[in-house]
Amino acid sequence: MIRLYDFELSGSCYKVRLLLNILKVSCERIPVDFVGKEHKSERFLKLNPLGEIPVMEDGEVRLRDAQSILVYIARQYDRSSTWFPDAPDSMGRIMQWLSFGGNELMAAAGARLIRILDYPHDLPVLQARAIESFRILDEHLSDREFLELGHPTIGDIACFPYVAMAGEGGIDLKPYANILRWIDRIRQIPGFIPMPGIPAIGAVAA
Amino acid sequence: MIRLYDFELSGSCYKVRLLLNILKVSCERIPVDFVGKEHKSERFLKLNPLGEIPVMEDGEVRLRDAQSILVYIARQYDRSSTWFPDAPDSMGRIMQWLSFGGNELMAAAGARLIRILDYPHDLPVLQARAIESFRILDEHLSDREFLELGHPTIGDIACFPYVAMAGEGGIDLKPYANILRWIDRIRQIPGFIPMPGIPAIGAVAA
Repeated sequence: MIRLYDFELSGSCYKVRLLLNILKVSCERIPVDFVGKEHKSERFLKLNPLGEIPVMEDGEVRLRDAQSILVYIARQYDRSSTWFPDAPDSMGRIMQWLSFGGNELMAAAGARLIRILDYPHDLPVLQARAIESFRILDEHLSDREFLELGHPTIGDIACFPYVAMAGEGGIDLKPYANILRWIDRIRQIPGFIPMPGIPAIGAVAA
Repeated sequence: MIRLYDFELSGSCYKVRLLLNILKVSCERIPVDFVGKEHKSERFLKLNPLGEIPVMEDGEVRLRDAQSILVYIARQYDRSSTWFPDAPDSMGRIMQWLSFGGNELMAAAGARLIRILDYPHDLPVLQARAIESFRILDEHLSDREFLELGHPTIGDIACFPYVAMAGEGGIDLKPYANILRWIDRIRQIPGFIPMPGIPAIGAVAA
């Protein structure tokens, strides 16, 4: 069984739990005391020298980095072959959003960390960066239901958590109607699991 | 033919040119005036709303983000199927280094930009982050010839440029003997193309 080194409130860990639940793959969750900085402990650095969660183990395979774990899980367990399909252009297009989820959107993750766990980052700088990334995402979603290919992929999963939970970082999603509709669509995927801070379905109409 | 929106000195553009040359795929290079901020122009933002180079076009496919372009090119043009192979665990392992190349190692890219193009970033902060990423990379390479799978992959290509050109960002690679040996190995791949700032073969022995 997959072992996931996990912290309940982490959006990056949630990406992995969300895809696993949608694909009906069970996992053993090994809690990491993120608040107590267990992810920087000598023991944990042997699992991931970057000192970050999540880490996944599946038999002999051990992987760090949420986006890398999504790639592995989709290729190993997605029998529909739709979450990270074979075609070179599909992979390239989805990869753009794995990068966006692991880079640009981590500003929103940082803003949330400051607000919910009192992290010592520069809140206005991170909020401004997050807002710029939301503007790009909202524009992209103006004529699309999902980020690429017209259906959900691991690109959506990689971007969803820190966008959907942006309110916890003090960022109002109301200006981004296309993003709010996309959040609604993702909430309706069979196997979706909620997290605190994600807007309720229909928030766009409110 | 592939069209690459390109800037000669960009390490991110070089990643793409390097893989194309190794795979013997020709491309049309469209120069972008990076110094003149053409990548932030209205015209360019229509190609890539993130305002970054490289951008690649291949027929109907347009992609931003060096790592995404590497994924596409490997899947579309690598007849050996070794640069980004099918197996789920291979993809997951390589993806870790696509993320590392697009995240952690961009500190080294930033340090280089400050030094060669006088960018207004915080040099000591970026150098310290780069050094931490080099420490992790050097340790990883202590018992490996390439980053994963025992042979070169797009993971190596994604990480190579900003490590190899770190000297231009004022970072000395001498303490990282495993990295210097890895640079030597990559330089010896048929189709390798040099860039200014990359140490000569044998620098490890110097």
